Amino acid sequence: MATHDYDLLVIGSGPGGQKAAIAAAKLGKRVAVVERRGMVGGVCTQTGTIPSKTLREAVLYLTGYAMRGLYGESYRVKQDITVQDLLARTHFVIGREVEVIRAQLQRNRVDLLSGAARFLDEHAVEVLGERRGEHQTVTADKIVVATGTKPARPPSVEFDDRRVVDSDGILAMEAIPASMVVVGAGVIGIEYASMFAALGTRVTVVERRPAMLEFCDTEVVESLKFHLRDLAVTFRFGEEVSGVSVSERGTVTTLASGKKIAAETVMYSAGRQGVTEELAVGRAGLEADPRGRLTVDEHYRTAVPHIYAVGDVIGFPALAATSMEQGRLAAYHAFDEPVGHADAALAPYGIYTIPEVSYCGATEAELTRSSVPYEVGIARYRELARGQIVGDDYGMLKLLVHPDTHALLGVHVFGTSATELVHVGQAIMGCGGTVDYLVDAVLNYPTLSEAYKVAALDATNKIRALQAFG
Amino acid sequence: MATHDYDLLVIGSGPGGQKAAIAAAKLGKRVAVVERRGMVGGVCTQTGTIPSKTLREAVLYLTGYAMRGLYGESYRVKQDITVQDLLARTHFVIGREVEVIRAQLQRNRVDLLSGAARFLDEHAVEVLGERRGEHQTVTADKIVVATGTKPARPPSVEFDDRRVVDSDGILAMEAIPASMVVVGAGVIGIEYASMFAALGTRVTVVERRPAMLEFCDTEVVESLKFHLRDLAVTFRFGEEVSGVSVSERGTVTTLASGKKIAAETVMYSAGRQGVTEELAVGRAGLEADPRGRLTVDEHYRTAVPHIYAVGDVIGFPALAATSMEQGRLAAYHAFDEPVGHADAALAPYGIYTIPEVSYCGATEAELTRSSVPYEVGIARYRELARGQIVGDDYGMLKLLVHPDTHALLGVHVFGTSATELVHVGQAIMGCGGTVDYLVDAVLNYPTLSEAYKVAALDATNKIRALQAFG
Repeated sequence: MATHDYDLLVIGSGPGGQKAAIAAAKLGKRVAVVERRGMVGGVCTQTGTIPSKTLREAVLYLTGYAMRGLYGESYRVKQDITVQDLLARTHFVIGREVEVIRAQLQRNRVDLLSGAARFLDEHAVEVLGERRGEHQTVTADKIVVATGTKPARPPSVEFDDRRVVDSDGILAMEAIPASMVVVGAGVIGIEYASMFAALGTRVTVVERRPAMLEFCDTEVVESLKFHLRDLAVTFRFGEEVSGVSVSERGTVTTLASGKKIAAETVMYSAGRQGVTEELAVGRAGLEADPRGRLTVDEHYRTAVPHIYAVGDVIGFPALAATSMEQGRLAAYHAFDEPVGHADAALAPYGIYTIPEVSYCGATEAELTRSSVPYEVGIARYRELARGQIVGDDYGMLKLLVHPDTHALLGVHVFGTSATELVHVGQAIMGCGGTVDYLVDAVLNYPTLSEAYKVAALDATNKIRALQAFG
Repeated sequence: MATHDYDLLVIGSGPGGQKAAIAAAKLGKRVAVVERRGMVGGVCTQTGTIPSKTLREAVLYLTGYAMRGLYGESYRVKQDITVQDLLARTHFVIGREVEVIRAQLQRNRVDLLSGAARFLDEHAVEVLGERRGEHQTVTADKIVVATGTKPARPPSVEFDDRRVVDSDGILAMEAIPASMVVVGAGVIGIEYASMFAALGTRVTVVERRPAMLEFCDTEVVESLKFHLRDLAVTFRFGEEVSGVSVSERGTVTTLASGKKIAAETVMYSAGRQGVTEELAVGRAGLEADPRGRLTVDEHYRTAVPHIYAVGDVIGFPALAATSMEQGRLAAYHAFDEPVGHADAALAPYGIYTIPEVSYCGATEAELTRSSVPYEVGIARYRELARGQIVGDDYGMLKLLVHPDTHALLGVHVFGTSATELVHVGQAIMGCGGTVDYLVDAVLNYPTLSEAYKVAALDATNKIRALQAFG
């Protein structure tokens, strides 16, 4: 074992890679992370989650989005919001996040090797620096591949990174477009569509499938669509883009159905591709699928037992939080460290649209399919003092409760702080609590968390009313 | 029983009264609530919690408080914030909240009787309207007193409701003062002190006791003091006010130690007085203590078995959330309805200072006093991506964990959304979970809730390191 340079080599410094490296280091292992220059933190930090969520916060603040109902336009922070306004903060936050990651790695004595990684064999990786000839070879006993994904670019579309961009390129825009076509109504597409809509851009969303975010609660998705339409978003479901033409005056997107849509900018967010080709995974005895992804077992082990893969490169769900947990679990497994297992079904989903969406546990559709009976408890933010204070009169929280056991089966939240609030329901489910806990709980007033108690009382009253008939 | 007009008469429409009335109505009882005109929702809605929390939100938004670090002053929403800016929203929210309360009472068929209540005997109450001679007498089988409190006004101080005000009068101010003395460092005093400090007022806090918020975590209170001093707040602990003189040019507050403090405004928040004198509780066979409070048993029953009292009028903790629960429990007890009991020790405390404070469970001091060993797990917001995005680099979450059982003993939060975040820890404690739940949980990224996982890993790593010595 000591013949190798490291006990663990992690390829990629995104959320999955970071947590794998730190977990192994805390177990006393010699660990290195390989990352390209300027890409510390991975796509998550550099072009993905962090910048898009920072942009979202800037949009909410600078447009005074939440406050419009209460103050009117006259209190808008800036009348003419520029790209500089929006992105100043993004660069700042990316810089701070990179510092935090570097400091964490350093504190845990993890080496950060700068360059692009390429397998030489199943234990050796070449790290290619920026300058010609600048490279080193490192060997490791165990390897974690956490190289993430990049936007898939359909060959039929000519990307010019100015008028026709992908979701990684949208942050390099020069001006806020007056109009925009978003191709793909997945999470990333809809998040950006809602942000630009809030900024006043006229957005058209084109999606091949007949619906969007089908894994979420139907009522929540319908509320989201209603709100986006209210912000002048047009949806074209069940339509395909047949071509995009670009001129000095803008773009024209032609759909297979013959419709044409003029827009200043077209953003493609039509899936992502695993970053494995550059890595020469074949030399390590691995094979990626046609979308560049690696297949792993329940311990995140690839076909080669000492090589693990975590994060977006292994596909669904491709969420930063899940990737972190995969990284930690892979490192623990690699070094035979026992580990507790969270119920994977309890990992929450967070969609940072405006308004935001989050849920945990089952949806109504899933329960109906599996013939599990449930009662619904609903709380509307506008009935909560805090909802009025923050000016959110559309938000709602829905609990799905088993009528006999009172177990919490699912929590669905739409509106302000949804991605934070969902964790209360998750904790109840994860610790084996029931809706009875909420019925009796005292919650801070005025908070949005009170929605849990209101929804719990609603569900419980319905269950009681039904029992009166039994 | 049918000889009485109502099954339940509730005196007061604040949080405790509302919930008592609605709980009884849902049990099919005939219920009425007595409230003075213009006071629907009680002090909580009209002059207390709701306006002060709305004002706080307006201060945060209009000053761009949280964003200063990220954007600088140039993005301030308004350069010259007026009282009108701050209070426009407050009146709006009060109006909406009153509507919500009225609608809830109506939907549950609770009569709202307008006027001041006065006992005639232990089953009869006189309701005196605004106009002379306008009164009615109503009788009820059970009665809940939920009349709340009013600010205690020391007789030595001349209140003019302009320069020398109490905490109920502060919202009638005509301009934002450049300087202010706050007498009393209780929750209300400190909340207002922090809001005015954020607005740029030079605040001096005078407190008779040697410390403030002693029931909270010591580190959290010290952080809060540090931040308030950073906003130019001066603390005078262990000092008493001997007199306040008022002139056209302002006020001078003289302390017993001889110090003099000039300020445009003096705000007293030196305790509150139960509202029982006007109610003529003696005619119902009740007696209030010298501070106007009523004594109750564990079912919120007064010395007269069919008369209950809930909310601030019974004293500590005098929090809206607790009052609501008391109201519900009193109504259930009055009509022999079985009820679950939340662990009262798990009721959270929320202090809406800037930055805010919240906790649930035990403090370090309490655990040390009872010789319960604990390990501390800490997460700092600035190490969380979300902390950077919202510009909170001072916030922190602290978990107190039993080293053997891993039980969560206390959760202490300081910073953005503290009053919401605390409910995750409360749910884990309330449902019998341990810190192990958090170690394995997947939480949305980027959220402030991730602080729980970071703190849990911190505590667990410390416990593991200690065991290595065992």
